[in-house]
Amino acid sequence: MKLKVYADRMSQPSRAILIFCKVNGIEIEEIHIELSKREHLSPEFQAINPLKKVPAIVDGRFKLFESHAILIYIASAFPGVANHWYPADASRKAKIHSVLDWHHLNLRRGTAGYVLNTVLAPLLGLPLNAQAAAEAEKVLVSSLSTIENIWLKGDGPFLLGSFRPSIADLSLVCEIMQLQLLDEKDHDRIIGPYKKVQQWIESTKNATKPHFDEVHNVLYKLKARLSAQQSSKADGQIKAGIKAPIFSKI
Amino acid sequence: MKLKVYADRMSQPSRAILIFCKVNGIEIEEIHIELSKREHLSPEFQAINPLKKVPAIVDGRFKLFESHAILIYIASAFPGVANHWYPADASRKAKIHSVLDWHHLNLRRGTAGYVLNTVLAPLLGLPLNAQAAAEAEKVLVSSLSTIENIWLKGDGPFLLGSFRPSIADLSLVCEIMQLQLLDEKDHDRIIGPYKKVQQWIESTKNATKPHFDEVHNVLYKLKARLSAQQSSKADGQIKAGIKAPIFSKI
Repeated sequence: MKLKVYADRMSQPSRAILIFCKVNGIEIEEIHIELSKREHLSPEFQAINPLKKVPAIVDGRFKLFESHAILIYIASAFPGVANHWYPADASRKAKIHSVLDWHHLNLRRGTAGYVLNTVLAPLLGLPLNAQAAAEAEKVLVSSLSTIENIWLKGDGPFLLGSFRPSIADLSLVCEIMQLQLLDEKDHDRIIGPYKKVQQWIESTKNATKPHFDEVHNVLYKLKARLSAQQSSKADGQIKAGIKAPIFSKI
Repeated sequence: MKLKVYADRMSQPSRAILIFCKVNGIEIEEIHIELSKREHLSPEFQAINPLKKVPAIVDGRFKLFESHAILIYIASAFPGVANHWYPADASRKAKIHSVLDWHHLNLRRGTAGYVLNTVLAPLLGLPLNAQAAAEAEKVLVSSLSTIENIWLKGDGPFLLGSFRPSIADLSLVCEIMQLQLLDEKDHDRIIGPYKKVQQWIESTKNATKPHFDEVHNVLYKLKARLSAQQSSKADGQIKAGIKAPIFSKI
């Protein structure tokens, strides 16, 4: 029986799971949970994940949610996943756990809060909150600086100075990709100063192609639609009519 | 060479590491990093943890930070840790990862934010922020409800219906213990409705005694001092003169 992955590709942790499975040749049944249609709130999906969030997996009778737990489980339980994704060595594994744990209250919190309060809120029928955006930006910028100066220290192009990517690279890069939804000026202002981060994103894309871009395609399409809206608007207000994606775990 | 644990017992993740080592008979050298004296900002400590937070460990030449990564490393690398703390079975391990991952943006975020903005801020020379407290309270209450209704579902007294505690029980209970610093009315209002949570805290204390109370003693002492201050104050303002603890990872 194939591994079932419940996902919405607009959700960054969903994308990480999907890319990971595809790169490692793990056959999956992808079950689309349309967040914008609130399918994650259905009783059927709550039977899979009582916390009502994507991604979630079902492996036989075993159900699991939280994307990092899922990545570790798949890397450990499925044969054929190359060691560099989640090394057997206790010390190397521990360092990867350290990055993954750090992620939640830093890069995740900053990115999700900033994108919500600068781009997504109007699409979700919520007011933009400038104060929340400013606070999230501080967390985001501090997180990018930590990645540039601490996590990317070392000889290799990946986190922890590695020469091959781990599940931490995939999780964090998929998160940063959400910044694609910002307007270009904003995006460049925030990411621009971090040259190693930019190089690392490219390295991770290359190491996981063609799956990386294929899974991100839905994000690229929304970005194109947002850019078109922005260039056509005259009054600075985002026009109605864009299909509203709702993001998990924000 | 003994495992070095850099900790301040006022920090809830520091306490989790210390109790875990003591319960499992792991000999450690506890190196006190006095957060209120900003010792975590010293160049010496930054050489241990460039993110300037406790807890951190040094095992021979290996350095590690982030408390969950540390708990997993110790449980995996040190002989004699009973299997229930971090089971070898991939499915059981995955469920524990799921709780640990959930923790960061839920119980941790809610508790740390609420305690900071109702009790600790004046002790740190910061203004109380009623809006931030209200937002944190929502996250905290929702997290307690999730623990009560989802994570504590099952036959056993511990998380995931287990009959013996795991590293997740220890991490989450140490976090909740920080609520001891609230005034009694506030504490009872927040924790009162969650009977299973209260029973689980007692079960975790019992499973780790006498180390649990011994490591929490510094918290109990501060609580007593805060209570004395509260009962002697007339104007509702916290008087000066309490030694100001600074908490990590807030």
